[in-house]
Amino acid sequence: MLKLMLLLVIPALLAACAASNKAPRPPRFAIAIHGGAGVIDRGAPEAEKESYRQSLERALRHGRDRLAAGDSALDVAESVVRILEDDPNFNAGKGAVFTEDGRHELDASIMDGRNLACGAVAGVRTVKNPITLARLVMEKTSHVLLVSDGAEQFATAVGVERVDPTYFDTERRRRALDRVLEERKRRAEQEKSRGTVGCVALDSHGNLAAATSTGGMTGKRYGRAGDSPIIGAGTYADNRTCAVSCTGTGEEFIRHVVAFQVSALMRYAGMPVEQAARTVIFERLQPDDGGLIAVSRTGEIAMPYNSSGMFRGAADSSGLFKVSIWEE
Amino acid sequence: MLKLMLLLVIPALLAACAASNKAPRPPRFAIAIHGGAGVIDRGAPEAEKESYRQSLERALRHGRDRLAAGDSALDVAESVVRILEDDPNFNAGKGAVFTEDGRHELDASIMDGRNLACGAVAGVRTVKNPITLARLVMEKTSHVLLVSDGAEQFATAVGVERVDPTYFDTERRRRALDRVLEERKRRAEQEKSRGTVGCVALDSHGNLAAATSTGGMTGKRYGRAGDSPIIGAGTYADNRTCAVSCTGTGEEFIRHVVAFQVSALMRYAGMPVEQAARTVIFERLQPDDGGLIAVSRTGEIAMPYNSSGMFRGAADSSGLFKVSIWEE
Repeated sequence: MLKLMLLLVIPALLAACAASNKAPRPPRFAIAIHGGAGVIDRGAPEAEKESYRQSLERALRHGRDRLAAGDSALDVAESVVRILEDDPNFNAGKGAVFTEDGRHELDASIMDGRNLACGAVAGVRTVKNPITLARLVMEKTSHVLLVSDGAEQFATAVGVERVDPTYFDTERRRRALDRVLEERKRRAEQEKSRGTVGCVALDSHGNLAAATSTGGMTGKRYGRAGDSPIIGAGTYADNRTCAVSCTGTGEEFIRHVVAFQVSALMRYAGMPVEQAARTVIFERLQPDDGGLIAVSRTGEIAMPYNSSGMFRGAADSSGLFKVSIWEE
Repeated sequence: MLKLMLLLVIPALLAACAASNKAPRPPRFAIAIHGGAGVIDRGAPEAEKESYRQSLERALRHGRDRLAAGDSALDVAESVVRILEDDPNFNAGKGAVFTEDGRHELDASIMDGRNLACGAVAGVRTVKNPITLARLVMEKTSHVLLVSDGAEQFATAVGVERVDPTYFDTERRRRALDRVLEERKRRAEQEKSRGTVGCVALDSHGNLAAATSTGGMTGKRYGRAGDSPIIGAGTYADNRTCAVSCTGTGEEFIRHVVAFQVSALMRYAGMPVEQAARTVIFERLQPDDGGLIAVSRTGEIAMPYNSSGMFRGAADSSGLFKVSIWEE
């Protein structure tokens, strides 16, 4: 009888060992960032491409090092997005695009996968780092989304760093506005929303967080809000599934509730994060709509996009560290 | 051989016939409406309750009759919500609550399940019927969500009916603001967002639509936006699954992406609409958060809520016609 049990049990144990040897250990932490989809052509000057790569590497290295030191996904997501906001290469914070009437209106959102806490601001004009104001909405109010003048009032109440609206002016974005207004005279409105920044992180405590920030759409009018300040559309994080940050044509990301839909496909259809993310980008959205970054609760990273390219980077505790613009 | 086949086939045919006789034919059209969750106590004066019931019946009858005449779900959802907006009993349009500084800021959203087209406005102050402006955002712009001053500018551009902001003033809502401000002096902020209106419809052509409109939260500040203007949170419609309109504590409905989550549970977890709606209301949200109305592509209606009551009504082509406030 004992012999028989051993005959049955030993092969099972051996098989289990082999399987555990084959399956890679999940990373202790993981991070992905993006700086917008479909922003530049492959034919851009090498110096420009190199400048973007360096910007992405700087932000990614900061995030990876803080996660390695045991910092929380939430702190890291906020702090990496602050770095991208302060970098004029990206359409968020310094470097934000101009609205039709030559102003800047910035949007941001952040979500903590531990407890689904979230905060967002839309249409702020004098807040140096909108992602930090979004986090304060999450932590200091009972609300999720504050808009426009109200968000500015709240910024005054909590005392975040303010800047004169001209701080956001950059020569490059001014030229982009001129081009859009020129084009608008000639033919039907053709607007593109590109250049959002975002970060998703899994920390060494097993918590997920996502953060997204944008300067909006060059030449936008009518107080248009895209997906970046919309929890579920541009940003979502849930420790049961994944953390997601999106970039692209905001209206399509709202319509398809993209960030939450990735989470729902994992939770309700049992898909791994890569399949869930690709399903949304390639089977729900249309070509050239944009892309997303996602990290699962087990540290897998997905970064699909259906535009011509996406500024992005990924790193984890197993040594992965890579930034890219197109397929490479 | 033939005999054997008949022996096998005939019972199967009989069983199929029996099943098709037992299963009710799906209704040709169906509609549900709501006028807010947790708004009044069971102990309210009978005349007040009766007034609400009559308001609900009037809107529901209008919607049912138009669906019976073959009108589209989208036209019916908009037009039923207009009736509820014009009715001072509900916190949407005429009858909207006051913000902290004694103004009105209205939100609305609408979605067409045929093609996921959608539109929304937040923070409008002079538009008599915000739901109609939301529909014009959907039909006349490439955007989904217009906010505040920009939404007002767009209203001017498209020429919808405007009113002086005092049009929205009602004595009852003024007293509610006084109570909230009084209470705020005495203890920590305790705000309730109640009294949204909404309509979901399945038309006789098999199309679904959802519409939601609200006057926001009494005494709200900081340009707070709730779930009503957020596609995916307060409103969603997809011909593959269902149409949903929500009412309750907006922040929780955003956090749990409630309207889209009902659709996702049907599409990805294979749940019928009643089970999907109850799962979100009772297993994702907390007691007293609010409720939702949903109609599936096959005309089943679900109206779960976890608050003390919900103004609601349902009708369909099989003769159902019923309005309720609590469990009855």
